[in-house]
Amino acid sequence: MSAGFAAALKEAQARISSQIDQRLSPSDRLHQAMAYALRGGKMLRGFLVLESARLHHVSPEAALEAALAIECIHAYSLVHDDLPCMDDDDLRRGQPTLHRKWDEATAVLAGDSLHTLAFELLAQETVGPHALLLIRSLAEAAGHNGMVSGQMLDIAAESTQTPLTLDEITTLQARKTGCLIEWSACAGARLAGADSTALRHYAQALGLAFQIADDILDIEGDAATVGKAVRKDAEAGKATFVSLLGLAGAKARARELTDLACAALSPYGNAGETLKDTARFVISRDN
Amino acid sequence: MSAGFAAALKEAQARISSQIDQRLSPSDRLHQAMAYALRGGKMLRGFLVLESARLHHVSPEAALEAALAIECIHAYSLVHDDLPCMDDDDLRRGQPTLHRKWDEATAVLAGDSLHTLAFELLAQETVGPHALLLIRSLAEAAGHNGMVSGQMLDIAAESTQTPLTLDEITTLQARKTGCLIEWSACAGARLAGADSTALRHYAQALGLAFQIADDILDIEGDAATVGKAVRKDAEAGKATFVSLLGLAGAKARARELTDLACAALSPYGNAGETLKDTARFVISRDN
Repeated sequence: MSAGFAAALKEAQARISSQIDQRLSPSDRLHQAMAYALRGGKMLRGFLVLESARLHHVSPEAALEAALAIECIHAYSLVHDDLPCMDDDDLRRGQPTLHRKWDEATAVLAGDSLHTLAFELLAQETVGPHALLLIRSLAEAAGHNGMVSGQMLDIAAESTQTPLTLDEITTLQARKTGCLIEWSACAGARLAGADSTALRHYAQALGLAFQIADDILDIEGDAATVGKAVRKDAEAGKATFVSLLGLAGAKARARELTDLACAALSPYGNAGETLKDTARFVISRDN
Repeated sequence: MSAGFAAALKEAQARISSQIDQRLSPSDRLHQAMAYALRGGKMLRGFLVLESARLHHVSPEAALEAALAIECIHAYSLVHDDLPCMDDDDLRRGQPTLHRKWDEATAVLAGDSLHTLAFELLAQETVGPHALLLIRSLAEAAGHNGMVSGQMLDIAAESTQTPLTLDEITTLQARKTGCLIEWSACAGARLAGADSTALRHYAQALGLAFQIADDILDIEGDAATVGKAVRKDAEAGKATFVSLLGLAGAKARARELTDLACAALSPYGNAGETLKDTARFVISRDN
């Protein structure tokens, strides 16, 4: 991890965390659960929002609302995904999942209120003249034709005997995780009313590299470092990028995608260095 | 039910249903589940949006987006509320609940995507210049200080030995069901950029009358007509408006609230008759 990137990520995490403290009360059980779900992650999506906003000279207030909004959507999706009727996970980011720490009803409701909070944040006056575009594009990325449809495909894949093909896995992952990563990276351009094409190309390569890296971590990582159960996919006989491309092939594809992601940032010149470091970090991370 | 009100409600249901058909594909499992959750109800909240929009001469397109949006939020909240870890209900509107007809994972995800769809609808250009106010107020009404906080209070109340007081139940219900009814009735004024005070006063009385009527139905209704399990509250020893005020007292209070709701509509003159009929219907309904 380059020193500049590490410092920028740490600063983004601190700014987003301070927003969480301002908005959620530690004396309310529901707020506590929401804050718990928001903390402890890398806040990579929020960081992408802040960094793309910096490239487009967006006001820090507007960028911060959007950064916390995407972290709320990401956190809600993890809380619901971890539920016993979904992936049934006990560990997330090295801590008990929300329904293990509290209970399932609290997990359903904390997820629901994080989901609502995302849209409440984007509807604030501080977001500026392009707020509706941000809201519409987030809803498209997260909803029944985006992230949630990817989760449905994932559940359907688990119950069939035929493993998915490479094309099918790529589609599934583009929806399940790619859409939100793309929204995050494009947010800065959209907040500024600028063209988001370069950032979209960057994010599409980054999102796929991210997922391949996740599949590699599931094979190579250990649960203590990764912070969640590993080798679940392999044991379940699920098709992954590693099972389809082999470990060496998956690593080579992730490196190619990183190069593609970096090349897409050429219109930004030197200002794009931190986002390039982000792409390099994504495939070298150990959690 | 007055003939004019019955016809207006039926027309609203038909218009909202036709929007559901246009937006959700019958060949997609997730879309099917979302449409199932949206159908079969009274669509009272959507009707309130359309009727308040009519009073304020809002374009039918804008009103219809908002009407379907509130039905999406209401439907998502019912689907999640019926889950085994929440109220664990098998029957809703006379049909199997979503998790009984499909499965729990589909119910979590269909609820989630209905939730997102509500905000996607309100962020359409057709909603007009006050879309952000509609979105912000809906998020406030539905989220961690609105509906979901009411559901948390409800769950907390079930696990304590001390029954709630009349003040506590009134607060709980104002959040759990009142906030969305208020948003629905105020939507027409907000879409028009007009003052929503009269409609807010109407809706506050209506929302409380609605909940008292629900508690009366839980005692007097039979499951076949009501379309869901009845006498659950009484059997669980939960405090309700009926247990606190008595059956006659609860009926008298509901009638008083209906009169208050009707009086609040006086600025609208004769144009407010359909909303007055709505208030009378709410306390006389049998499901």
